[in-house]
Amino acid sequence: MSESDIIATPAVEPNGTPPEDRVHDKEDRLRTSFVREVLDAVADGDDEAARALVAGLHPADIADLIELTPTDERADLIEALAGMVDADVYAELNEHVREDVIDEMEPQQVADLAAQLDTDDAVAILEDLEADDQLAVLRAMEPDDRAAVEEALTYPEESAGRLMQRDLIAVPEHWKVGQVIDYLRSGDELATDFWEVFVVSPDHHPVGTCKLSAILRSPRTVQVSDIMARKQTLIPVDLDQEEVALKFQKYALISAAVVDPSGRLVGMITVDDIVHIIQEEAGEDALLLSGAGEGDINEPLIDTYKSRVRWLAANLVTALVAATVIRFFEDSIARMAILAALMPIVAGVGGNAGTQTLAVTVRAIATNQLTGSNHWRAVWREIRVALLNGLTIALLIGVGVTIVLGSAQLGAVIAAAMLTNIVIAGLAGVLVPLGLEKAGTDPAVASSVFVTMVTDSMGFLVFLGLATAAGLAG
Amino acid sequence: MSESDIIATPAVEPNGTPPEDRVHDKEDRLRTSFVREVLDAVADGDDEAARALVAGLHPADIADLIELTPTDERADLIEALAGMVDADVYAELNEHVREDVIDEMEPQQVADLAAQLDTDDAVAILEDLEADDQLAVLRAMEPDDRAAVEEALTYPEESAGRLMQRDLIAVPEHWKVGQVIDYLRSGDELATDFWEVFVVSPDHHPVGTCKLSAILRSPRTVQVSDIMARKQTLIPVDLDQEEVALKFQKYALISAAVVDPSGRLVGMITVDDIVHIIQEEAGEDALLLSGAGEGDINEPLIDTYKSRVRWLAANLVTALVAATVIRFFEDSIARMAILAALMPIVAGVGGNAGTQTLAVTVRAIATNQLTGSNHWRAVWREIRVALLNGLTIALLIGVGVTIVLGSAQLGAVIAAAMLTNIVIAGLAGVLVPLGLEKAGTDPAVASSVFVTMVTDSMGFLVFLGLATAAGLAG
Repeated sequence: MSESDIIATPAVEPNGTPPEDRVHDKEDRLRTSFVREVLDAVADGDDEAARALVAGLHPADIADLIELTPTDERADLIEALAGMVDADVYAELNEHVREDVIDEMEPQQVADLAAQLDTDDAVAILEDLEADDQLAVLRAMEPDDRAAVEEALTYPEESAGRLMQRDLIAVPEHWKVGQVIDYLRSGDELATDFWEVFVVSPDHHPVGTCKLSAILRSPRTVQVSDIMARKQTLIPVDLDQEEVALKFQKYALISAAVVDPSGRLVGMITVDDIVHIIQEEAGEDALLLSGAGEGDINEPLIDTYKSRVRWLAANLVTALVAATVIRFFEDSIARMAILAALMPIVAGVGGNAGTQTLAVTVRAIATNQLTGSNHWRAVWREIRVALLNGLTIALLIGVGVTIVLGSAQLGAVIAAAMLTNIVIAGLAGVLVPLGLEKAGTDPAVASSVFVTMVTDSMGFLVFLGLATAAGLAG
Repeated sequence: MSESDIIATPAVEPNGTPPEDRVHDKEDRLRTSFVREVLDAVADGDDEAARALVAGLHPADIADLIELTPTDERADLIEALAGMVDADVYAELNEHVREDVIDEMEPQQVADLAAQLDTDDAVAILEDLEADDQLAVLRAMEPDDRAAVEEALTYPEESAGRLMQRDLIAVPEHWKVGQVIDYLRSGDELATDFWEVFVVSPDHHPVGTCKLSAILRSPRTVQVSDIMARKQTLIPVDLDQEEVALKFQKYALISAAVVDPSGRLVGMITVDDIVHIIQEEAGEDALLLSGAGEGDINEPLIDTYKSRVRWLAANLVTALVAATVIRFFEDSIARMAILAALMPIVAGVGGNAGTQTLAVTVRAIATNQLTGSNHWRAVWREIRVALLNGLTIALLIGVGVTIVLGSAQLGAVIAAAMLTNIVIAGLAGVLVPLGLEKAGTDPAVASSVFVTMVTDSMGFLVFLGLATAAGLAG
């Protein structure tokens, strides 16, 4: 141990990797200096040193390390670490990075990897492969694993069937606590990670769940059906993962039974498989609203380009609509060029007001807070907020323009246009996403193009129209 | 049972409330018709009917029902449901709605409520109260509960200390599995909800954790220290909840030990308390980026106004900067008003390109994917994406303007300006948030004002500047 180890060793060592302070910064990210140290060791051919540094890291941290490594150094890093990059690391790896890495592997290697994983993680790796690579890997797998993965792949992408594990503990109602404990102690081939035991009827329909704490706290002679919770949240096997995530969140679930259309228990989803999805689904609003597509920094460049340029092209069209509005007023502008300088203010601040309302509405819809029961209340609320905002900003710009440009009339025109556009923006910001939601479209994806078009066009129209009507540019 | 019950009863009944289909829509939201039915019953004074409808609903659904009820009907609803609105419902309630409801209650009622809750939920209710109301409630509480809540309130808001429960199971290393099970069966005052047992040293420092499944699967004679996981993620009691959430997610935790600065075990956080925070923290980016503040549709109107108008005022300032840029070119515009119609296209599409990059960068920073190890790679990536996007959009607008307006020179000018502004936008979109992050500011909060200012001003400057330099408006 170096001297700094002794000094730096903190009271809290999240993963027992000494010296913790050299590995992670206080936000639990791998330090740049640590990543550099590992990569330098690999570059120097000193695999031993690299392995010593990485030893003891959590699989999630090894996955982070691989992601933070430049693409062209990843193969060398993985080779140097060899056995340390195990199936758990692959399960944690960003899907684009994983695809890159797995593309370099033989089918047999991928099959061995998949065999070590829970079905859901194996499926996550296999579903990204090209059809023929997938087949090659499936052929190299053990028949049991292969059957499980193939069955999972029959369910729709991003559905409960892809997320669930098949390994779970199910016991009949008439069992006693003692029997359950003996059963759990008996079999080595039973699931290892579970938090609840499912109680099933003779035809394998779930009738209740028993928390492990309830089993542990009850005498051996108590019947399972007396301590189980009868109310349970069952997940249909074809339910979309976003809905699964909302159920876990709403009902504070740790694990839940997955049932097929006939109600038979076919799998289990645990909360640790869901937290990623909760995070992804909640975070994607910001990306979708801005048209950034998947927004993953590890995505292939060409995919990023494709998704973003589509959006920019759509916005080019809305900008052209706004430009057409302006062209109607070219004469006014030619006579009074200051209008051209002021009009983007009305459009721009209106656009911001619309985006605010939009973000709030999309979020409230996504979290099921805004439903048919309260949408008119939400619209009325946005109108009032828009009036307050509009009056404030209109006053500021109206007084400012009057003083700076010395024209009370111009000040009044821009104030009136600003108030109008902010109210229109507020209405568009709440009505567009509600309308798209009603039409069955994801409001986060399409709303902002519409709202921007409205706030831009109306901003120019109202301002230039009022100025022209007031005879300012006469 | 009515006829519709028999027909409608689905195979899957998430909460056992018949008929499930009448209560929830397929996205698990309360149906508007169901909410209406309950509120109509309350309005008719038919409390019995209202209670029958609500009977069997999960506390989270009762909380949703209260949130979906118009403000002025909430008191009647809660009175009609009386005992059904229990502490668990209050724990699930939106904080603004809860504040409203609790404001109407006597301190003793609030104290009774808090006494039924885990410390973390009681704290969540009490921390929102005014100081003197809080004191009144604390005085009305049992000394034990009061002490626990008061201690929690000494930790910073949104820290692990506020989130943790004090009730947990801790056992010494030398215990055997049998002893643990006997201990759990013995005490009625022990915690009821736990998923792991913490193993502690004689001075109460955590040395490992035992999943309950590991305990259940091991013979009584096995020593706890032989089946416990020694690697564990410890949460410092003053850690911010956002960091706590990232740790739960990264390491797929179900529960984790909370330790004080000396390393002693002082509490436990379970994942069900964290999923809300993961969702909130991930979702707030969209709201922060758009300046919508907290963005809660239940927030008091005046608070919403205050947070949004500040942002609009900031954007007004950036719009004024852009207007100033335009004023330099008033002569050109007076001579060639079409420039005024085209300039917002350059600024607007640039703004969108900047927002895309910004959303991706902010998200990658928030999820710890973008660190010092790879930020130059990210910048270089954004430059390449911006060049591809810029070339595509410049080509489209350049050709379009040339054809429609019949001026190849104007087409060339707008194409060059567009390419330049999209590249500038891409750079600003990645460098501004990285810079703010480095400066210790939340990049989601402040970035977009800067980026908009850059894309607007530069869009106008480059386009009008090039047009003027090219002698178009001569």
